[in-house]
Amino acid sequence: MSSSSAVPAAKPPIRDALVAAAFRLFLERGFEQTTVDDIVALAGVGRRSFFRYFPSKEDVVFPDHEGCLADMTAFLAASGPEHEPVRRVCDAARLVLRLYAENPAFSVQRYRLTRQVPGLRAYELSVVWRYERALAEYLRGRFAGRPDGTLRADVIAAAVVAAHNNALRSWLRSDGVGDAGAAVDHALAYVQMTYARPADAPALWSGPAGAGPGPGGDVVVLVSRRDAPLWRVVQELETVLDRP
Amino acid sequence: MSSSSAVPAAKPPIRDALVAAAFRLFLERGFEQTTVDDIVALAGVGRRSFFRYFPSKEDVVFPDHEGCLADMTAFLAASGPEHEPVRRVCDAARLVLRLYAENPAFSVQRYRLTRQVPGLRAYELSVVWRYERALAEYLRGRFAGRPDGTLRADVIAAAVVAAHNNALRSWLRSDGVGDAGAAVDHALAYVQMTYARPADAPALWSGPAGAGPGPGGDVVVLVSRRDAPLWRVVQELETVLDRP
Repeated sequence: MSSSSAVPAAKPPIRDALVAAAFRLFLERGFEQTTVDDIVALAGVGRRSFFRYFPSKEDVVFPDHEGCLADMTAFLAASGPEHEPVRRVCDAARLVLRLYAENPAFSVQRYRLTRQVPGLRAYELSVVWRYERALAEYLRGRFAGRPDGTLRADVIAAAVVAAHNNALRSWLRSDGVGDAGAAVDHALAYVQMTYARPADAPALWSGPAGAGPGPGGDVVVLVSRRDAPLWRVVQELETVLDRP
Repeated sequence: MSSSSAVPAAKPPIRDALVAAAFRLFLERGFEQTTVDDIVALAGVGRRSFFRYFPSKEDVVFPDHEGCLADMTAFLAASGPEHEPVRRVCDAARLVLRLYAENPAFSVQRYRLTRQVPGLRAYELSVVWRYERALAEYLRGRFAGRPDGTLRADVIAAAVVAAHNNALRSWLRSDGVGDAGAAVDHALAYVQMTYARPADAPALWSGPAGAGPGPGGDVVVLVSRRDAPLWRVVQELETVLDRP
C-alpha cells in the first residue's frame, strides 16, 4: 500500500510460539487464570523472552496492532495533495481490516476472548482510540485553516472507525464467514458518500482527454417539490449525476 | 429533560468529602502516589466507606458518570416517534455537557489529571464507549428494518460523540473559559445538518395551518452544470430550500 513500507521482516518463531501458547491457554483456562509463567512453560522459553516481545499479558492478545499503527501512520504520511482526504482515511482503515482478514480463525477467537474479559475490552478501546487519533490528525492537517477544520476532522475520523468496526464486528460475529472486504467497502462507501468532497478529487471529474469539465459541460435540471426531504433530493441527484 | 427522571436525591456528604479529599491528594502527590488509605484518612472516614461509594480509585475521578449514563438511558427510553432520532441523540449528548459545565473548575482539574495518568485515560475511554453504545442502541431501534440501519446508527452515534467531545475538550483546554453550551450546540449542529432527516421531523415542514406539505406544494427548479461538485449543488439546494 504505502511505498514507504518495507518488506516485512520474518516474524521470530519465539514470538509466534508465545502467541500460540498464550491463546491455547486463554481458551482452555480463561485469560485471568493464565499466568505469564504458564505461557512461557508451554512455549518452552524463559520468562524474559516473553517480556522482550510483549510489555504485558494483554499485549499478547493483540500482537500485530503496533505494527499496523506504524503502517497506517506511514501510509498517511506518504499522502499528497492529490489524495482526496476522506478517501485516504478510508483506505488507511482498510489496513486494519487486512490484519483481521489475514487470519480469520485467530481473529474470531480473539473477538470472543475480548468480549469475555473486561481488561481486554479496555485494551481494545485504547487501540481503537489510537487508530482514530491517527486518522483525525491526518485530517486536521488536511483541513487546516478551513472553518471548523478540527471538528470536521474528528467527526469524520470517528465515522470512518465506526463504519469499519460495524462491518468488521458483523463479520467476526458470523465466525469470519463471508467477504469481510466487501462488507467494509460497503460501510466505508457510506462515509465517503457523506463526507468526501468531489472538489478535492479532480480525477473523479475529468472525462476522456479534451472532454474534461469546462464551461461547455452538460446541464442537469432537477425538479423537486419544496416539501421533499433533502435526503431524497440528494439521492435523486446522485442517481442522475451517476455518482456513488 | 426526561419526564422519567425523578428529583435527584441530595448527595451524601461522605461521598462529596471523599471526592474532595481524593482530588486534593491527586493534584498534590499524583494519582499513582495516592492510596485509598490516604484518601480516607484525609476525609476522616473508614476504608469501608470509600468502597461503599466507589468500586476503585479510578471511579472517584469520575463520580457522576454512572448517574449521567442512567439519565441518558432514561431520556432515550422516554422518546417517542415524534422525536427526530438524530436530534434526539444530540439532545441526549447535551446531558453529558451539563455534567461538565455545572462545575468548570472540577472538570478542568479532572481533564488535566486524565491527560497525565494512562489508567484514567483508559477509564475515560470506557465511559465514552458506554455513552456511544447507549446512543447507538437507541438509533438502532429507530432505524430497525431500514437498509443499513445498524451501520447508520453506529456511524451517527460516533459522529455525535466526536462532535460533542471536540467542543468539550476545546473548552476544557481553554480552562473552562467561554460558553461550553454554545460550542457544543455548534458542533452538534454540524452532525444534525449532515444526518437528520427532515422527513422524520414533520413539524419542521408544516407551514401555517392548511398550508402544510401536500401535492400542491411549491416547485423548485435547480439547474446545475454536470461538472459541478456535488457538495456545491447540495449547498445551493440548502440555500434555495431554506434549510440549515
